[in-house]
Amino acid sequence: MRYLITFSYDGSKYNGYQKQVNVRTIQEEVEKVLTIINDNNSVSISASGRTDRGVHALNQKAHFDLKINITSDKLKMAMNSMLPNDIYVKKVEEVEDDFHARYNVKNKEYIYKINMGEYNPIEKDYIYQYNKKLDIEKIEKAIKFFEGTHDFKSFTAADDIRDNYERTIIKTDVRLENDVLTMTFVGTGFLRYMVRNIVGVLIEVGEGKRKIENIKEIFEAHDRKEAGKTAPAEGLYLKDVYYR
Amino acid sequence: MRYLITFSYDGSKYNGYQKQVNVRTIQEEVEKVLTIINDNNSVSISASGRTDRGVHALNQKAHFDLKINITSDKLKMAMNSMLPNDIYVKKVEEVEDDFHARYNVKNKEYIYKINMGEYNPIEKDYIYQYNKKLDIEKIEKAIKFFEGTHDFKSFTAADDIRDNYERTIIKTDVRLENDVLTMTFVGTGFLRYMVRNIVGVLIEVGEGKRKIENIKEIFEAHDRKEAGKTAPAEGLYLKDVYYR
Repeated sequence: MRYLITFSYDGSKYNGYQKQVNVRTIQEEVEKVLTIINDNNSVSISASGRTDRGVHALNQKAHFDLKINITSDKLKMAMNSMLPNDIYVKKVEEVEDDFHARYNVKNKEYIYKINMGEYNPIEKDYIYQYNKKLDIEKIEKAIKFFEGTHDFKSFTAADDIRDNYERTIIKTDVRLENDVLTMTFVGTGFLRYMVRNIVGVLIEVGEGKRKIENIKEIFEAHDRKEAGKTAPAEGLYLKDVYYR
Repeated sequence: MRYLITFSYDGSKYNGYQKQVNVRTIQEEVEKVLTIINDNNSVSISASGRTDRGVHALNQKAHFDLKINITSDKLKMAMNSMLPNDIYVKKVEEVEDDFHARYNVKNKEYIYKINMGEYNPIEKDYIYQYNKKLDIEKIEKAIKFFEGTHDFKSFTAADDIRDNYERTIIKTDVRLENDVLTMTFVGTGFLRYMVRNIVGVLIEVGEGKRKIENIKEIFEAHDRKEAGKTAPAEGLYLKDVYYR
């Protein structure tokens, strides 16, 4: 039986989502628990995509197959009783055998949070502590330049070599609440570091260090060096994954 | 010269405010840094009061004396450059030699946060994950019974032996935002565990397990056993300290 889970996690104590040797990862914690539930037959999970070290998820999705028979409700309870308390399964669904949590993605939604107010130690792992004012009107204008279909090569990890860097951002949003700026990006797919590199440029625009018109040139350069710094991981959340 | 600092901290990685042998405490971290700044002459700080293990502070206050001459601005910068990133000095003021951060307190303000919505791993150290609905109308009525001057012996730690358990709560408030209930308590002073024990009773009232009228009986019993469970530390914040 194939299951799809919706789960949230605090990424601050993990070395990212994807399993690696000798470091703590979200994937490994979930697979460890599922293997026990599956009568010690090993289970591999396929997520909608990885999240990098320190990045959080509000609604990550992953599918996997189990040999045992277990209802969705019982599986949810069993997983949550064994998972560390910074990973939580919100929903378990039974899905068709050919459902794939990554290949079937229609859209993904990310949010990025920046504290423009005073440094707050309580939120240091959850909101980027920028702690200075940014020109929000400029950022609101600039973020629109990222909507639509573009070649995002300048906004991905420099060592990310692939044939196609074209992605479509279908919606963006900027919201301010109590000095915390939240930027939203909904798109068909995201390259590695893409959101954090876009946010890096938007911060430079908000600082007045980069002109809005310059964004077009960054796209055209097809070169990571043209964009700004990668914004820190702790402000980034995978908020939702939508399927076809 | 005597200084008064206003500082915030994430209590989740500390064994409480007050210095103890062999464990990490807020007081020790602050004193360690001040001793270095004070040309390695040891510095003792006096806070408005302790906070227990896992409890946070948004505006804790403490005073201390330094042998060296340093401006408030420079002292703030020096402290923040050396303190761990989960403790932050928000303000440094020069005060009179007879100012005392504990004896001069007029009022203190605490808030307690409860998540009545779904478990959220990202806020597990910062909001009590109760994850069930509470009857807020009942809680709003019940919290008023704690206002005024009372003998709070039933609401303090069982081993807290002292002559006088009388304290005055001058203001309470209950607020709901996105499934998070925030209770506010402003009072002239608080006994150990007092806020968390009051919240424990309020939760029982909100669950329908305890009648509002029963609160009077708890006060009259002068016995910790009459009150409910102590609410967990992670929901509690020392929000403000006001001086005469």
